[in-house]
Amino acid sequence: MNGNCLIRKKNIFSLTTDYNWSSEGIGVMKGVILSSINNARIIDLCHTVKSFSKINGSRQFEMIRYLPVGIHILVVDPGVGTNRKAISILTNRGDILIGPDNGVMINAANLLGGINEVYTIDIRLSEQTVFDGRDVFAYSAGLIGSGKKALSDIGKKIRKESLCPSPLIDNQKLKNKVDSIVVHINHFGNIILNINSKEIDNFLNRKVKISSNVKSIYATVRRAFGNVAIGKPLLCDDGYGRYCVALNQGSAKDELKVDVESIIHLELCE
Amino acid sequence: MNGNCLIRKKNIFSLTTDYNWSSEGIGVMKGVILSSINNARIIDLCHTVKSFSKINGSRQFEMIRYLPVGIHILVVDPGVGTNRKAISILTNRGDILIGPDNGVMINAANLLGGINEVYTIDIRLSEQTVFDGRDVFAYSAGLIGSGKKALSDIGKKIRKESLCPSPLIDNQKLKNKVDSIVVHINHFGNIILNINSKEIDNFLNRKVKISSNVKSIYATVRRAFGNVAIGKPLLCDDGYGRYCVALNQGSAKDELKVDVESIIHLELCE
Amino acid sequence: MNGNCLIRKKNIFSLTTDYNWSSEGIGVMKGVILSSINNARIIDLCHTVKSFSKINGSRQFEMIRYLPVGIHILVVDPGVGTNRKAISILTNRGDILIGPDNGVMINAANLLGGINEVYTIDIRLSEQTVFDGRDVFAYSAGLIGSGKKALSDIGKKIRKESLCPSPLIDNQKLKNKVDSIVVHINHFGNIILNINSKEIDNFLNRKVKISSNVKSIYATVRRAFGNVAIGKPLLCDDGYGRYCVALNQGSAKDELKVDVESIIHLELCE
Repeated sequence: MNGNCLIRKKNIFSLTTDYNWSSEGIGVMKGVILSSINNARIIDLCHTVKSFSKINGSRQFEMIRYLPVGIHILVVDPGVGTNRKAISILTNRGDILIGPDNGVMINAANLLGGINEVYTIDIRLSEQTVFDGRDVFAYSAGLIGSGKKALSDIGKKIRKESLCPSPLIDNQKLKNKVDSIVVHINHFGNIILNINSKEIDNFLNRKVKISSNVKSIYATVRRAFGNVAIGKPLLCDDGYGRYCVALNQGSAKDELKVDVESIIHLELCE
Repeated sequence: MNGNCLIRKKNIFSLTTDYNWSSEGIGVMKGVILSSINNARIIDLCHTVKSFSKINGSRQFEMIRYLPVGIHILVVDPGVGTNRKAISILTNRGDILIGPDNGVMINAANLLGGINEVYTIDIRLSEQTVFDGRDVFAYSAGLIGSGKKALSDIGKKIRKESLCPSPLIDNQKLKNKVDSIVVHINHFGNIILNINSKEIDNFLNRKVKISSNVKSIYATVRRAFGNVAIGKPLLCDDGYGRYCVALNQGSAKDELKVDVESIIHLELCE
Repeated sequence: MNGNCLIRKKNIFSLTTDYNWSSEGIGVMKGVILSSINNARIIDLCHTVKSFSKINGSRQFEMIRYLPVGIHILVVDPGVGTNRKAISILTNRGDILIGPDNGVMINAANLLGGINEVYTIDIRLSEQTVFDGRDVFAYSAGLIGSGKKALSDIGKKIRKESLCPSPLIDNQKLKNKVDSIVVHINHFGNIILNINSKEIDNFLNRKVKISSNVKSIYATVRRAFGNVAIGKPLLCDDGYGRYCVALNQGSAKDELKVDVESIIHLELCE
């Protein structure tokens, strides 16, 4: 039983884009999906990926692991209109991930049991335009979810080894000195780093010097915000397994003056 | 068979407003609809129409052509609380458009096969307030979609010739010299003009001088963003049939310092 | 029949948070709910409560009175990670309100017929993190709505008298001189005050001096925006029963330079 011969009806869909909430494109994509499958449930996972940032897109798309098995669309696509491939990935959990072949879907696929099969997407709703979110991704998602098309009906099977690699790699650990990349900044100004926080218990209450290009601050490793005074910095888990620099009820982003993809240097104090 | 005698049950709804995503009014309107029809599917088409801009509202509401047949609510309504009429428009495709009689729904209706019938809306949920999005538009949408009321139960049939005309007219073509109006600016800073891009193939690779009140830039007519260098301007299709001034991975809005309803002058170079 | 012994299946859910629309947490919470109950309908009531403002959270959460009976989640929670209780409130209308015990849900509960029973929530999806929106509130909402758990299965019944009191009290009336608190500011810059507008008819067309810390303006009490000239101030109903300072097609917030929780002084003129 594989993608090649199996119709994969699904009615759960999710959207992750850098369109921003001001875009009518989000509603239009939903319309295109609902036109194929009128009982679709479409979850907006994130529409505020930093424009064109594959690193931020990777981090946000990883969150599909909290969604039910479904068809998950990713549109962070600086290469739209060029010859980059559009692809569908069948995960071992049973999801179908749809988006450009630029590595952004790889981490999420690995969190869903890994990649089972990959197909190109070679159809489009309209030849005229370069709105691939609507014409390629939402359109093919609707056809697949409704059972009108199998993955093999809309493209060719390709080797998973041929896919672009993930732009976001967490090969760092918290240690005496480590450079990290800002992979996300949330509304509160909390800064998420590409450092796994699995071993946070080994570092609780340690002091860490945290430096951007413009400023250094000293934070304490903590489990929770309430554990430091208002306005004080802490290094904690981001809720998803990475370290996060935060100020209790303040903005670490404003304090350190960084943005997504900035470099942050950490140094454990004695 | 007309609106007069026909109950028009629908469970697809869409919302287009200038409320902005920070408004609790969006959720409240959904609550009012769901209170009448508990299997409603409500699509947020756009909530970031520029405040009070009928031109921008018209352009955004045109996107309902990508949605399934349903009840489409439009709230861009600088005249709320005055004696402007509230209306429901039955389109030839079978949709019902609900909103104020200020011309903003006309283009969309024409894209859905044209206007079949028009009724006033003469009911409201609460006499007390001026929140017509909730008290008039969402309330009547729920009653109509649930089949509790026909269009003729909630208002009087009026002649379509009596409606306010559309504020957004595309009577321009790309030519040697042309003045256009900015009808939309998206999150990336792309500028959409009231010039139909149907004949873009005749102009591919031509250079165009694009001038706002404060600055001129030279753009090339292209099919896709990837076809120009990062940061360089292009004139392309907006994905919906109008010309769009864009910078590849940059903001044309910031470059030309324009806003919705600004004037942009185009001049084809030799 | 009470919460103790009754499974309370519901498929209508709503979310009110201060996460902002840029948060992936909203989509993640929906995923967690849908993983328990795949026909859930989840309404985003408001995600732009001013960060950590219990007063603004109270006002926004009151809007659940326009939603169908359901499970309504509130996450405005400056005390997350401390020992504040997580609670579920069964209202007399039949809703279940889920959130922190910090008073923010009290006004809404009173608008839904009052509090019937209250339970603590003593379960969580993950021990590791402090993302209570996902791990406590959405998780328990899904278990309750799906009928897998009763309120008494996930916590202990507590006395409603033991709950934190509401942070938002409207004990003011419009009168000769009155100090009020800004409880909300909307996208248009309209300023909502903690003064009940029930008796607005007694004051129609009266002039009112409205003063912030930095500026005073003179507004007229009106029913509707259209009733004053563009740019002119008015004092009207906010659509939900409180007084609202507004400029017709302008921003009262910018004019008076106030924010949520600022003090505004009103003085009725002769």
